[in-house]
Parts: sequence; structure tokens; C-alpha cells
Amino acid sequence: LKVTSEVKKIAVIGGGSWATALVKILSENNVRINWWLRNKEDVEHIIKFQRNPSYLSDIKLDTNKVFPSTNLLDHIKDNDMILLCVPSAFLEAILVQIPKDLLKDKIVISAIKGMIPSSNQLITDFLAKSFGIPCENLCVIAGPCHSEEVAMEKRSYLTIAGYGDVNTNSVAQILSCRFLKSSTIKDLHGAEFCAVMKNIIAIASGIARGLNYGDNFQAVLVSNAMSEIKLFLDAADPRERDLNRSAYLGDLLVTTYSQFSRNRTFGVLVGRGYSVKSAQFEMKMVAEGYFGVKSIYEVSKQFNIDMPITKAVYNILYEKISPSIEMKILENILK
Amino acid sequence: LKVTSEVKKIAVIGGGSWATALVKILSENNVRINWWLRNKEDVEHIIKFQRNPSYLSDIKLDTNKVFPSTNLLDHIKDNDMILLCVPSAFLEAILVQIPKDLLKDKIVISAIKGMIPSSNQLITDFLAKSFGIPCENLCVIAGPCHSEEVAMEKRSYLTIAGYGDVNTNSVAQILSCRFLKSSTIKDLHGAEFCAVMKNIIAIASGIARGLNYGDNFQAVLVSNAMSEIKLFLDAADPRERDLNRSAYLGDLLVTTYSQFSRNRTFGVLVGRGYSVKSAQFEMKMVAEGYFGVKSIYEVSKQFNIDMPITKAVYNILYEKISPSIEMKILENILK
Repeated sequence: LKVTSEVKKIAVIGGGSWATALVKILSENNVRINWWLRNKEDVEHIIKFQRNPSYLSDIKLDTNKVFPSTNLLDHIKDNDMILLCVPSAFLEAILVQIPKDLLKDKIVISAIKGMIPSSNQLITDFLAKSFGIPCENLCVIAGPCHSEEVAMEKRSYLTIAGYGDVNTNSVAQILSCRFLKSSTIKDLHGAEFCAVMKNIIAIASGIARGLNYGDNFQAVLVSNAMSEIKLFLDAADPRERDLNRSAYLGDLLVTTYSQFSRNRTFGVLVGRGYSVKSAQFEMKMVAEGYFGVKSIYEVSKQFNIDMPITKAVYNILYEKISPSIEMKILENILK
Repeated sequence: LKVTSEVKKIAVIGGGSWATALVKILSENNVRINWWLRNKEDVEHIIKFQRNPSYLSDIKLDTNKVFPSTNLLDHIKDNDMILLCVPSAFLEAILVQIPKDLLKDKIVISAIKGMIPSSNQLITDFLAKSFGIPCENLCVIAGPCHSEEVAMEKRSYLTIAGYGDVNTNSVAQILSCRFLKSSTIKDLHGAEFCAVMKNIIAIASGIARGLNYGDNFQAVLVSNAMSEIKLFLDAADPRERDLNRSAYLGDLLVTTYSQFSRNRTFGVLVGRGYSVKSAQFEMKMVAEGYFGVKSIYEVSKQFNIDMPITKAVYNILYEKISPSIEMKILENILK
């Protein structure tokens, strides 16, 4: 199966802020968007008022192109391109509702920045193995891109990662518009791992900020994090890659330095002394990095590599070790 | 000449905020600091009140260890280690006051983040050529480190770059203290070039911010900048180096993302529509990157390499091309 520029239909699965931003980008092009949202009231609101009541409601949606509904099966049946944009922790529960062989001939794009918590699988690995989707039909959307700035039409960039050139280019094409440029890289798994790891580093940065560490420490933390990410990628998916590209370094920066980063905010609360539970309660959501750090830490142990920042975040979130103790240990390791 | 840990004397040349912070770090160790400041009133104030009246006056200086004076020649004669910390544009005029052969047997450490404007020479190149200082006696202090956070004793890191292991290690030792760790790299010229380039990128980031570009753009700008820096270093000083280290990436981050960065602030003003002159007037100083961009741009032309971000900043500051036009051009080049 090849997708060409004539393909004008896509199903977007998920109703959060990133899904809403992607729907906006897609609808800048001549694409018919079948949008699945879990919540019936949200669907009705969008049809009536052209806005998602729950996320980024500043965005006016073009309902001549955007067709929301709660019917998952129909959306997936009727489209050859499926864009998945739901929290990683819910993906299995959502896809269990559709027949196993329905996805195998489709282009499936993951905008999910996490792993399957129960198995520590990358999303595209899980999709390939559980639904028989060939590798060249899978793509990943990498940042650096906060949905809030897409809503404001601030100049933004995406990177589409995949092994199938034709498909990756087609996806990059429909995800480019007047204020956003998408480029491509041939590194599905690396981009995906990196998207998970940046959330862990964002939590670490937030914790440091919450503990009153300054800009000097933050800069050292992030540059050491790049070495940690490289070490992990070289072990888990060895491949020639330029980590300075915006899909890797850029994505890390936008997540660790921006006020819009949920993972960073979660870290700040933990650093200030909130328990993990109360920080999650305060934020009314679970930051992806909370699950991500457990997966990456467990995978790093399989490869027998030392990731001090990841380990510190894991210890703080899962072993209830005090943030200030873990940061003191990190202080001496970083350089 | 070898410096060992027994050396307990150093001359610090320069009275600005970075010099004041370095004096504080040094005086945490058992080192006698002969501090040259240009301004007689400042010297008298420091002796009387133990504070530099002009910069970082929160810092209480230990005048049992810190000996300020305006006598440049004596300071340089009496010490085997000389730490230079003056604006790059003033260095020649300061050193012309001392005999040409006085520095050739000394360890000379540059904390200057610029180049000699008239010749586009690196500071250490200029020192080696004009004063006959052997390469292994030269060191450079690289960040990431804002002096304001040193004053607050926030956990910080420095990197000492040099080709002479013994000297570099000794300098790292006297520049480490309870709240600051110095490590070493064997890359004098790379670290020095990088320190100049980060100021250019900080100006570019500031200009983008002044023009209301957001965090997404900033992240892409900085990751593209890393590629630009790599391209330049591979041409101007080819050598195996890990650009993720905090002397390179970390220093870039602290300068482009921090509120304390003067170069970034200068860029913000220019982005908002201030002329270069009025931005400099507003800031009561000339940002190092203003000179740095001219030198790096001219050197890049010698090597025939394309540095779009550097070129944009050069065009804005020296060719009076509108910041918004240059940023529009960059928008399309970045990815």
C-alpha cells in the first residue's frame, strides 16, 4: 500500500489538545478528517459550535472538513490513514474494540509520546506485532511542537519519522501548512524512544526547578541528558542519527524549557514537595513521563546501561526517595 | 612551567560581573587573588566595604584573600597564573601597557567570550602569537555559568579547556568549590569558538522572541544552531569532540534560554524594533555577540561554509536589514 498526495482522507483517533492541534493543521489542507472522540457531548458541541469544548477551544474548526463522531469502527474502516493520538496508557483498551486484522493494510501514524506500560513496547512495535502492520506503513510524529502554539498559529515545525519514504513524505505533506513545516527522518524507533525520554528529562528539570536549582544547573542537566539519550539509543536501536536535529534535541528543548510542558509542571510540583498522587490530582491528568520513566528505566536495565537522570526520576516517582536526595546524587554525577 | 596544586597565587584582570564571580569562586579556596580593576574608586570601595560597587555587590569578598588594585604591571609580574576577564574589544588596549615578554612563562587563562575584533583572532591565538605563550600554558574557562547564579551560590559547573593536562587540571582544581564543579576538556579552540557562537545564537533567540516567535520556533532555532556550530568547528578546528557536553550545548542553552543573558536581552530589544545603537544605549553596554557575529561571519566566509543563523544576525546588526525579513528567510531554512 502506498499513500500518494491524492489521498484526501484521514481518521484522527483521540480528542485531547494534541489531537485538536493536529486536526487544525490537517484541515488547513484539502483533507477530509474523520475525528473520533470518546465523549459524545464533545462531538455534539463540535458539530454545533465548531470548537472542542475540552481542549484548545480557541481553535475554530472547519466542519466542512472535520467530521467528529464516537464511532471508532466506522472511522477506521472508512480510512486508509489512521492517526493515533491518545494517551499511551489507554491505547490497548481503545484498539481492543476493533477487529485484529482491520489495521494491517493501513498507514498508521502515531502521535503518542509514550510506550505500552504493561509490556514496555514502543507504540509502533506494539502496532506492528499486535495488528500485523508492516514497518513501512508506520510513522511517528515528532516535535518540537506545543499544541498551544499551533492554536496561536505560531511558526512551528514537525518531523515525521518512518522507514517507508513514500508514506513518510505523504504524511509530512498533509501535516505542513502556512504556519507549520514538516520534514522527515528515517528513524522510526529512535524518534519514538526520544519522545518518551524527553518527558522524563522534562520531569527532572521541573523537579530541579521546584527545588530552586537555577539556569546553570538546568543547562548542565539537559546537556548531560543528551548524552544519556545517545547512550540509550545506541544500545536499544543502534543506527546513524544526528541528535542535533529538531526531532531529538529540539523536542527535548521545547519540553524541558517551555511553560506549556505538562511533564515539567508535574516535576515542579514534585520538587516543591507534592506527593506524586497529589501532583497528578492538582494537574487533573497523568503526565506521560510518569509511565515513560518506568518503561525506559526497565529497558535500560535490560541493556545494562547507566542512566543517572532517568534513575533519579524513577527513584523519586516509584521508590518514594526524596527529590532533594536524588538531586544531590545527580549534582555529583553531572559535569 | 607547570602549575601544581601548591600554587596559591593568581592575578585576575578585569572588574566586571564575571570577574567578580570568578574572584568569589577562587576565594572559596586557599588562593591569594591579586585583582586588577581599572577604576580606582571601585578598588577603594572593595577595600573599605568588601564589595564590588559596580557588579554583583551582593557578594561579600574576603579581603584576607582578595587584594584589589589598579596596578596592572605589578599584578602580572608577581603572579604565575593570570586570569583575563575583560571585554574582548578592550583586551589589546589593556595588554599594550605591559612588556611583550612578560606573559610568555605564565599560565594564562581566558574567561573572555569573544574574539579580537580587528583581526578575527581567538583570544588564545592572539595571546600565543603576540606574547609568545606556549599553547599548553593557555586555558579557557567555558560555561555554562551565569555570574548572577554564582553570586547566589546556586549549584553550577564550569569546564576548563586546554591542551596542557597538568595546567588544565590545576586550573579546574582552584576553580572548584562547595557549590561549583569544574571539569576539563582537551579542546582549547573549539571551546573558545563555541563561546563566541553561543552569544550569536542568543541574540538570534532574543530577536525571535522580540518578534513574538514562540517556544516551538526557539527550540528549532537552537537545534539548528547546534548543526551550524558543528559545521563551523569541523571547518575551523577539525577534531573529535562531543558537542553534547556542557561546555558546548550547556553553554548554548544557558545563554539562549536564561533571563540573565545579556546577548539575548540585546536581541529582544532589536527584535522589538530598537536600533542597534539604542539597544546598546538602553543596556548601557555592548553585548559580546555584537562583535562576535562579525568575526564568525567573516571567518565562515573564509571557509566557504553556510551559516544561515549567523548570517541573519550579521545582516540585522551590520547591514540594517529588517529583523522580520531575516527571520522570515530563516523560517524557511530551518527544519
